[in-house]
Amino acid sequence: MRILGIDPGYAILGYGIVELKGNHFEVCGYGAITTDAKMDMTDRLKCLYHSLSEIIAQYEPDEASIEELFFNTNVKTAIMVGQARGVAILACANSGMKISEYTPLQIKQALVGYGRAEKKQMQSMVKTILNLQQVPKPDDTADALAAAICHGHSANARRRLDKIKK
Amino acid sequence: MRILGIDPGYAILGYGIVELKGNHFEVCGYGAITTDAKMDMTDRLKCLYHSLSEIIAQYEPDEASIEELFFNTNVKTAIMVGQARGVAILACANSGMKISEYTPLQIKQALVGYGRAEKKQMQSMVKTILNLQQVPKPDDTADALAAAICHGHSANARRRLDKIKK
Repeated sequence: MRILGIDPGYAILGYGIVELKGNHFEVCGYGAITTDAKMDMTDRLKCLYHSLSEIIAQYEPDEASIEELFFNTNVKTAIMVGQARGVAILACANSGMKISEYTPLQIKQALVGYGRAEKKQMQSMVKTILNLQQVPKPDDTADALAAAICHGHSANARRRLDKIKK
Repeated sequence: MRILGIDPGYAILGYGIVELKGNHFEVCGYGAITTDAKMDMTDRLKCLYHSLSEIIAQYEPDEASIEELFFNTNVKTAIMVGQARGVAILACANSGMKISEYTPLQIKQALVGYGRAEKKQMQSMVKTILNLQQVPKPDDTADALAAAICHGHSANARRRLDKIKK
């Protein structure tokens, strides 16, 4: 199963594609879509949607995993990030992908086994699990890969559970 | 000029299309796109995007007007409404429309000439300006028509200003 992980944002949207083979992950690609602060919000949303749709067409992932947003910010910022998140979800949905959402706590727990893990620990685990030479930059990219890995773990757990039930 | 007004929301998205002829408005159509609370958010966003795109294809508006969101709510709700707003903006942008944003204060001022006007006054003005038999329901529809009228006033003001400058 090929999984697309997304860390949504309107200035930087991190993405990462991993292939789950049994219990093992292989990285297919990762990066960040960035939009210029000088662009108006409409053009930024359009750019995010079309760039992400192109990435989906290129890598053909089976499922998507996106981090749930819970942060301490003001309502105005939340609306702006929400808008970016909306078009990212739409790009996945319009490509016929199933989308799962995970809280930061669930993602940390899946990767480090500890919900209060630090950012550096998380990034180090992403690097190790995917056998990368270095921690992917920007941070949004590592976060997107973490979301993809978390969904892979969760899919494996569900599969084992289904086997027990049968 | 034909203007599409939008009052964004994930459960109810109000829309209204008006034709501006000189200083006079004619209503072309209005209504609300509603999504079922039982649907998951992905399907709701997809439904909003595709329904709004169909409405745009049907009425072929030249420009869009959308209310800026400023409300007292929690961050989680703001993200959810932001997501709906993002896909609404994208539907307009993907149809090649220019989108203008107005604060509730600007919309009230444009319609009633008073930024602290009450909801009932606003709705009554929408009914009068568009020569409707009754106030359009739900409220989101009247709000969407108000956003469209506000943009029409603003476009007329810009045109007058351009003439003076020449």
